[in-house]
Amino acid sequence: MNTLVLGGAGFIGRHLCAALIAAGHAVTSLDLLPAGGRVDWPAIAGVTWQAGDFTNTADLTTALAETDLVVHLVSTTLPRTSNENPLYDLHGNVGGSLQLFDLIRKQPKPPRIVFISSGGTVYGIPRTIPINEEHPTNPVCAYGIGKLAIEKYLALYRYLHGLDYRILRLANPYGEQQSLHSGQGVIPVFLHKALQHEQLEIWGDGTVVRDYLYIDDVINAILTTIDYTGTKRIFNIGSGTGHSLNDLLDHLRLLLGNAINCTYLPARVCDVPVNILDITLARRELGWQPLVPLAVGMAKVRDSLLCC
Amino acid sequence: MNTLVLGGAGFIGRHLCAALIAAGHAVTSLDLLPAGGRVDWPAIAGVTWQAGDFTNTADLTTALAETDLVVHLVSTTLPRTSNENPLYDLHGNVGGSLQLFDLIRKQPKPPRIVFISSGGTVYGIPRTIPINEEHPTNPVCAYGIGKLAIEKYLALYRYLHGLDYRILRLANPYGEQQSLHSGQGVIPVFLHKALQHEQLEIWGDGTVVRDYLYIDDVINAILTTIDYTGTKRIFNIGSGTGHSLNDLLDHLRLLLGNAINCTYLPARVCDVPVNILDITLARRELGWQPLVPLAVGMAKVRDSLLCC
Repeated sequence: MNTLVLGGAGFIGRHLCAALIAAGHAVTSLDLLPAGGRVDWPAIAGVTWQAGDFTNTADLTTALAETDLVVHLVSTTLPRTSNENPLYDLHGNVGGSLQLFDLIRKQPKPPRIVFISSGGTVYGIPRTIPINEEHPTNPVCAYGIGKLAIEKYLALYRYLHGLDYRILRLANPYGEQQSLHSGQGVIPVFLHKALQHEQLEIWGDGTVVRDYLYIDDVINAILTTIDYTGTKRIFNIGSGTGHSLNDLLDHLRLLLGNAINCTYLPARVCDVPVNILDITLARRELGWQPLVPLAVGMAKVRDSLLCC
Repeated sequence: MNTLVLGGAGFIGRHLCAALIAAGHAVTSLDLLPAGGRVDWPAIAGVTWQAGDFTNTADLTTALAETDLVVHLVSTTLPRTSNENPLYDLHGNVGGSLQLFDLIRKQPKPPRIVFISSGGTVYGIPRTIPINEEHPTNPVCAYGIGKLAIEKYLALYRYLHGLDYRILRLANPYGEQQSLHSGQGVIPVFLHKALQHEQLEIWGDGTVVRDYLYIDDVINAILTTIDYTGTKRIFNIGSGTGHSLNDLLDHLRLLLGNAINCTYLPARVCDVPVNILDITLARRELGWQPLVPLAVGMAKVRDSLLCC
């Protein structure tokens, strides 16, 4: 299968490209980042790296030729920073994605789409825990509104033009090769700082609960979704359990065997108090389930940081 | 109260401006259309007409000075035509509204906002009838996705910046001075054509059901919302009953006392089969209710067409 990964040089993108190659896909990556991401990361043999911007239709037109499947991982903003300029988020993420879908539906043989949405932001402040896919969607960040609008445009393009798509509302992914400087990925950042005996910064009192999912489980969910032919379109993809930031500190102490130096800062308005996804639908429909417990995943990230 | 009506020269806008003046507001209208709309319509004394584009921040900045309340009626697209260019709808309506909210929240004393959303499109194909405000929102036209995204940005700006807003999800409004050429407003178009003994065009088999609301009831809903200080933010505003296009034909025959010449054309993909809004919340919270039955409203529109 000819597969185009939009954002293939990012954290999830690199892991996905490697897994797709291993699964026999012919893989092209379109990304603003240099081929394969950071120069100190291992190359991924077999991937065709196209440097380009997914909001540039010329770049997209080249990348889409002969493509059977598009996995759309691109975001031009982060949940936290999206509120600083919601219009930028709207034009880049929503406008770019809508333009992409319009280009795809005009292809001679439109490829299928797997879109990575955000289980951590589309629901907003939860009314019930865990959150299932039918939960109201009232985001408290522009990033979440953008992801939601993109989901709605996908459904519209299926209704109008028969576009085939699936949406994964992803919890908080973490793993090896996650950037320490992107503003996402608290687990590698905490591990890195703790290993360097630097002070950790906690926004709020540490009780904020998130649903952390190890990268291998994320990739398996995407691969399973590619093969899925059922009727469901939107799936929560999470660990099914929640951990507070203070839980993470406990795990760090156990993993590293030393005291953790941390400071508590004022809470951020964009942080919902708790987010745990109900993954019943993905278990039932996709036959997927998370396999890597938090302690195991964190140990793997620790080991990757120690060996570099 | 200093009230700015965005889109004050349109169908709802003109009726609203007149009602606001009567209720003692100081009214400014910002609209692309000439002051007060068509030259053959009666002037509305007391309204300050500002010609301008709501997506132009320079025009908006002037209009927003000293404003206590903004009623946002503008749309740059129609439900039916929005699917021809969803990106245009996104940039104009959603981008323009987001820019508006950003400008408003930066005012020394941010005005309140009443936003007219679309009860006919935000819900998509209904799962239950009548449709209440908690019904899932899966639009089958870009216009509906845009209205929904604007609603979400309003909620976000309240969460982040304390913006005070109310949203009215309006059914199909009809009444005097509704354009016969805008592509909206089947009732005056049918009445006009029937009076001229022209052939009426029905898209589909005439069984499509809509919730038609007479303009005086629409205006009363807006005025009531302006005074509302309760906790609810989103209200369905409709007649609470549904009528098929074939029902409209029966009403036409009764009203005009003659045979109606009509032709049935292929159904349109953007037409959901039925839309009737549950107005329980508006009745209870706003103390508002529709007062004008369809036959009475249609007779008023007929009379206005006969006298011009």
